[in-house]
Amino acid sequence: MNDRQGFASDNVAGAMPEVMEALARFNNGFAASYGDDEVCAQAGDLIRGLLDTDAEVHFVASGTAANALCLAALAQPHESVLAHEHSHVATDETGAPGFFGAGMSVIGLHGTSGRIDPAALALALDRPDDPHWQSPAALSLTNATEYGAVYAEADLAALIAPAKARGLKIHLDGARLANAVAAGFDPKAVARLGVDVMVLGGTKAGSTPTEAIVLSDKTLNRRFGARLKHAGQLISKSRFLAAPWIGMLETSAWASRAGHANAMAARLAAIMPFEVVHPVEANAVFVAMDDAVLARLAETGWTVGRVLDGSARFMCSWATKPEAVDILGAALKTVA
Amino acid sequence: MNDRQGFASDNVAGAMPEVMEALARFNNGFAASYGDDEVCAQAGDLIRGLLDTDAEVHFVASGTAANALCLAALAQPHESVLAHEHSHVATDETGAPGFFGAGMSVIGLHGTSGRIDPAALALALDRPDDPHWQSPAALSLTNATEYGAVYAEADLAALIAPAKARGLKIHLDGARLANAVAAGFDPKAVARLGVDVMVLGGTKAGSTPTEAIVLSDKTLNRRFGARLKHAGQLISKSRFLAAPWIGMLETSAWASRAGHANAMAARLAAIMPFEVVHPVEANAVFVAMDDAVLARLAETGWTVGRVLDGSARFMCSWATKPEAVDILGAALKTVA
Amino acid sequence: MNDRQGFASDNVAGAMPEVMEALARFNNGFAASYGDDEVCAQAGDLIRGLLDTDAEVHFVASGTAANALCLAALAQPHESVLAHEHSHVATDETGAPGFFGAGMSVIGLHGTSGRIDPAALALALDRPDDPHWQSPAALSLTNATEYGAVYAEADLAALIAPAKARGLKIHLDGARLANAVAAGFDPKAVARLGVDVMVLGGTKAGSTPTEAIVLSDKTLNRRFGARLKHAGQLISKSRFLAAPWIGMLETSAWASRAGHANAMAARLAAIMPFEVVHPVEANAVFVAMDDAVLARLAETGWTVGRVLDGSARFMCSWATKPEAVDILGAALKTVA
Amino acid sequence: MNDRQGFASDNVAGAMPEVMEALARFNNGFAASYGDDEVCAQAGDLIRGLLDTDAEVHFVASGTAANALCLAALAQPHESVLAHEHSHVATDETGAPGFFGAGMSVIGLHGTSGRIDPAALALALDRPDDPHWQSPAALSLTNATEYGAVYAEADLAALIAPAKARGLKIHLDGARLANAVAAGFDPKAVARLGVDVMVLGGTKAGSTPTEAIVLSDKTLNRRFGARLKHAGQLISKSRFLAAPWIGMLETSAWASRAGHANAMAARLAAIMPFEVVHPVEANAVFVAMDDAVLARLAETGWTVGRVLDGSARFMCSWATKPEAVDILGAALKTVA
Repeated sequence: MNDRQGFASDNVAGAMPEVMEALARFNNGFAASYGDDEVCAQAGDLIRGLLDTDAEVHFVASGTAANALCLAALAQPHESVLAHEHSHVATDETGAPGFFGAGMSVIGLHGTSGRIDPAALALALDRPDDPHWQSPAALSLTNATEYGAVYAEADLAALIAPAKARGLKIHLDGARLANAVAAGFDPKAVARLGVDVMVLGGTKAGSTPTEAIVLSDKTLNRRFGARLKHAGQLISKSRFLAAPWIGMLETSAWASRAGHANAMAARLAAIMPFEVVHPVEANAVFVAMDDAVLARLAETGWTVGRVLDGSARFMCSWATKPEAVDILGAALKTVA
Repeated sequence: MNDRQGFASDNVAGAMPEVMEALARFNNGFAASYGDDEVCAQAGDLIRGLLDTDAEVHFVASGTAANALCLAALAQPHESVLAHEHSHVATDETGAPGFFGAGMSVIGLHGTSGRIDPAALALALDRPDDPHWQSPAALSLTNATEYGAVYAEADLAALIAPAKARGLKIHLDGARLANAVAAGFDPKAVARLGVDVMVLGGTKAGSTPTEAIVLSDKTLNRRFGARLKHAGQLISKSRFLAAPWIGMLETSAWASRAGHANAMAARLAAIMPFEVVHPVEANAVFVAMDDAVLARLAETGWTVGRVLDGSARFMCSWATKPEAVDILGAALKTVA
Repeated sequence: MNDRQGFASDNVAGAMPEVMEALARFNNGFAASYGDDEVCAQAGDLIRGLLDTDAEVHFVASGTAANALCLAALAQPHESVLAHEHSHVATDETGAPGFFGAGMSVIGLHGTSGRIDPAALALALDRPDDPHWQSPAALSLTNATEYGAVYAEADLAALIAPAKARGLKIHLDGARLANAVAAGFDPKAVARLGVDVMVLGGTKAGSTPTEAIVLSDKTLNRRFGARLKHAGQLISKSRFLAAPWIGMLETSAWASRAGHANAMAARLAAIMPFEVVHPVEANAVFVAMDDAVLARLAETGWTVGRVLDGSARFMCSWATKPEAVDILGAALKTVA
Repeated sequence: MNDRQGFASDNVAGAMPEVMEALARFNNGFAASYGDDEVCAQAGDLIRGLLDTDAEVHFVASGTAANALCLAALAQPHESVLAHEHSHVATDETGAPGFFGAGMSVIGLHGTSGRIDPAALALALDRPDDPHWQSPAALSLTNATEYGAVYAEADLAALIAPAKARGLKIHLDGARLANAVAAGFDPKAVARLGVDVMVLGGTKAGSTPTEAIVLSDKTLNRRFGARLKHAGQLISKSRFLAAPWIGMLETSAWASRAGHANAMAARLAAIMPFEVVHPVEANAVFVAMDDAVLARLAETGWTVGRVLDGSARFMCSWATKPEAVDILGAALKTVA
C-alpha cells in the first residue's frame, strides 16, 4: 500500500515507534496473564494519571467490542442507548451493540457534524416509559465525533446533565479522544463531566490493536473480568495490549502525534478545492464531491470513500506525511 | 515475574523473536484494514500451506472468542456441541460458547486425559432428538488435549466418523496444535479428517495475541466478516494479528519451538518426584500433589495451581529454560 | 371497560363464541402435551386446508414471539431482515427480533400505508455484502398492513420475486390475515407466493391468545420444537392454543367475523368527519386529528391514540357493534 | 387419550371447572390489553392475598419462559444461578435460561429427592470470584421439588440465609407450589423467607396455560413490561391469563384440587408393588422399575416414562380419578 491509500482511514497506518519500542521492552520474561500483570497495572496508572481519575482500566483488542460491551453493561436487553444517529455504535458496528446487549437497541439522535442536538436529546428523554419500546438507560457520546468535530467540555455538560437527571448512565466513545485532546479538549474533563465509562482509543491514535475501557463508575467493575471473558474479550497475554499505552503515555506521543494528524487535516483543508462540509477540528476532512470526481480520483490511485452523510472523507493519522498531503492537494486540483 | 512463575501457564511467556521481528517488519507503511491487507493474505497462504488445504483463514485476538464464535457458526441456539467434559470450551471460558451461541450449550463427555471416550460419544449420538433437550449439532475436539495428551490421527478419525455419520459438524480446538505437531501429529491430517473449522493457536505457541480461524468448510465463510464484526472480533489493524504467523511459519519456529516446550515437559517429567497422572505427550506435566506440598512450594515462590481433575499442572513453553526446569525439579524434591 | 374503549385496538375484544365453545369442548379428558396432542393435529389440518399447503404448524401464545422466533430462524445474528419501516416487527415489539435473533436487526423500508415500495426494496437488495453492515437474509411482509391496507397477490409477488432472486427467505406477518382474506385476499396465495414462514393471527381475529406458525419451508421444521422450548414458547397444555383454531376454522367464523370487523371500519369511514389518511381495506380507520380534538374526545371517554405516522387510529374487531360505530360517529361530529 | 395416559404428567390434564367458568365470565365485553386490565388487577390482588405480600404480579403463558426470564432478571450473562442439578431449570428447559440470560449458566447442586444439600450449597458459595467461571448471582429453589418432595419452611430458610449473606437473589420455582401448600407448606412463607421472585404455577395446578411471576423485590418491576415484551412474553389479551387465577383463588380450588392430586399419589403409593424411591409428599410417585416391567406396562397401554435419576414417574393431577389409580395399581401388580 502506498501513500495514496493512506487517507482511507486512520486504521491503515501502522504503529508509532513509541508503541513498537514498548512492545519489545515488555516482551522480556514472564508476566501474569488475563490483566493481572505489572504491565497492565503500569499502563492503568498512566491512564488514570492522564484522566486524573481513580478509575478501573481494562484492555481489549477491538473498539467495536469495547463500546458494545460497555453499553451492554449500562443497559438491559429491553432498554436502549441514545447516541448520535451517525455515531460508530449506531451505524458502523454491524449490530454489535445488539449482540453484546442481547437485543438492546441504539436509538439515533439528530445533530450537525456528529454532535447530538440538545433538543433532540430532550425529546428522547421526555418520552415516557412504555412496555412497547426500549426506554433509554444510557447516553453514548463520541469525542472527536464521527465527522471530525470536537465537543467542548461545556457542550458535553449540556448533554450529560439532562441525561443524568433522568437516571441515564454516560458512555464516551473516545476512539479519537487523542485528536480531541490535541485540539484542546482537557482529558481531565472526562471525570469532571461524570462520564461513567469511556473507551479510550489506542488503535486510531497510532497503536497496535488496543483500546482501554475506563470504568469511572467503579461499581461497574464487579465481575468485569468475567464479563470480558464471557464475551471473548479477555486476552491472555494482556501485556501486549497494555505495553502500547506505556509507550504512548510515558512520552507525550499519544497527544502530540494526534496533534500531527490534526495538523495534516488542517493542511489538507487549507488547500482543498472542494467544499469542506464539516468543521476540521480533528484529523479528518469531509468534502462535497460528485461521483465523477471520485471516479477520476480513483483512476489515479487514490482511495477515498463516501461516508453516511454522502460526503467524501479524507482521514489523516500520525503517519501522514506533509508531502503526501500536498501531493493529494495537487491531485484534487487536477480532478476538480 | 521470574522463572518461578513461568510454569503457571504457556500464556505467561512473551513472544518468540520471530514474532517480534515480523511485527516490526510489517509495521512499515500503510496497509488495508479489517483483514483485507496483504499481510493477512500472506499469513493465510502460509497456514494453508502448513495444513495443505484450501481453507478460508481469519485472525482474531482471543482463543476463547475464536472457539465460541466457531461453535456458534456450527450450532443453533437450541442445539448443543459435544466436547470433552474438561475441555477448554466446556469448563474454562466463563460461558462464552453460550454467549456467542445465544444459549447454545456444551455437553461434556467422559474420557481419560482429555481424550473423548468413543463409547461416551456413541451414547450421546444415539440419544434421539427431543424438544426438551439441546440435540448436538457439532463435535468439538482438542489436540493436544487439556491434559497434555496428543490424539493420533486414527483416534480422531474414530470420533469424527460416527459424528459425521449423524450430520454433526467438526470443530478442532488447536490452541496447542503446535505441541501436537511437535509430538508427531501431521498438520495435514486436519483436512484429511474432515474437520470443518479449526482454531489454530498462535498465542500459546509463542506469539503476541493471535489465533487463526481456519474454515475448511468454505460455506461457513459466507458473511463471516460480518459475523466477526457483529461479535466484536474484527480487528481493524489486522496486519498485527497476521504478521506473527508469518514470523512463525516462514521459519520452522512454530513447530520447533513447540518441540522445545514439549522437551522441557519431558525433562521435568523425568525428574518429577511426584506421580505423573497424565501421559506427557505435549508441553504439560500433571501430577498428584497434596495441599501441604502445594503450600510449601508456594512458600518458596513457585506458582502452581490445581486444575479441574485435582492434579497440579506444570506448563512449559517456548520460553522455558532447561535450567529453570532443573531448579524446579530440585525444589520439588525439597518439598516432596 | 365500555364500548368507548372498544376502538383502541382489536386486542381489547374478548374471544368469539366459536372459540369459547371449542375451548370447553376440547377441555375434556387427558391430552398429550407440548403439541403432540390430537387437538393440535386437527387444528393443523384445518390450517393446512385453509392455506391449501402441506406446511408444518406450531402454536404459540404471542404474536411478537411468533414473529421474532421465525425471523431468528431465517436470519443469522449478523444478518438483517427487511421490513416496512412502520411494521410491527420494526417498531412495536420492543426489540424482540433483536433478542430472539441475538442482535439480528430489522431494516426499515419506505412505502405508503404500510406497503413496501418496490423501489425501496430494490435499493436495499442492491447494497453489496460488507462486513460493516448486517446484510439482509429475509424479507418480512405484513397483510393486512399496519395501516389497514391490503396487499393484492400481485403486489406481494412483485416484492417476493426480487427478494427470492437474491436468496432471501420470505416471512409473512399474518396477524390480520383474516381481515385481508375478508377483503378478498385468497389465503391459498400464501403458498403460491412462496412464503417460507407465516404467522397466522388468531388473537386479533377474535381468539383467546394463540398464533399459528406455518412453516411452508419444511426444512425449517428440523428441531423446531427445541427451538420453541429454548425460547420459552413451547406451551405444555398445547390443546388450549389449538382448540380456538378448530372453533374458528371448522365454521366460517375466522373469515366471516373478520368481514364484520372490516364492515365496521367501512361504516365508520363513511361517517368520519375527519380526513381519512389511509385506504380503509381492513378493520382500521386512520384519520388526521389535531391534539385539541383528541383531547375533547378523551374528555368524553373515548380511547383513541396516535400511531407512528401521527394519525389517530380507530380499530374495529369481531366484537364491534354497529350502534357503537354510530355513536362514535356522532361523538366525532361533536368534537370536530 | 384415556386414563391410562393420565399419569404421564400433570400437564396432560385439562382445566378445572373453576377455570373454565372464569374464562367464560371474564370474556364479556372489552378489556384493556397487555396486563393493564381489571382482570389482571383482580387476579394480582388474589395472589397478593394468598401470599400475604405486596408484590408485583405479571402473567405469562409458559413456566419455562417465566423461570428463564426471572433468572435473567437476577443474573448477568457472565454470572450463574445455583439450582438443584435435576431441577427443571437445570435439566428440562432446553437451555432456555441460557437463551433468556444471553449465556448465563445454571450450576447444578446435589441433594436427595430434588432438595438441595446445604453442604453442596455452601461449597458453591465459598468458591471465590474469578474471571474464568460464572460466579453465582442467584439461588433457584423448587417447591414441591422435581421429585415430589416438599421443603419445609425451615429447610428453605437454611438454604436462603447463606445465599442471601453472599448477596445472591432468591428465585422460587413454584410450578407445583399448590401441591406443596396442600401438603402443609404455608404460602405466606414465601414472603417471610425473603424470596425475591417466584413463579407461581397455574398450569400444573389445573389451569389453562398461565403462570404468575411474583416480584416480591419490587425494584425488579422497573421496566418489567418492556422486559416481557422484548422476550416475547407480554400477551395482548392478558385477561385470559388472569381469569383462571380468579377462578382458582376466589374459591379454594387451587389448593384443594392440589390436595386431591396429592391424595391420589398417596393412594397409588399405598398400593404400589414396586419400591418407591422418593418421599410421596406431593402429587408424584417415583418407583424403581426395570425395562422389562416398563415394556409390559406399555404393552397394556400405560404411558410411563423414566426421569433423570432413572426412576419411573407416575404423576397425579386434579383430574386423576381414584378408580383410575386403583386400576393402575392392579395393572402394576400384573406386570410386577
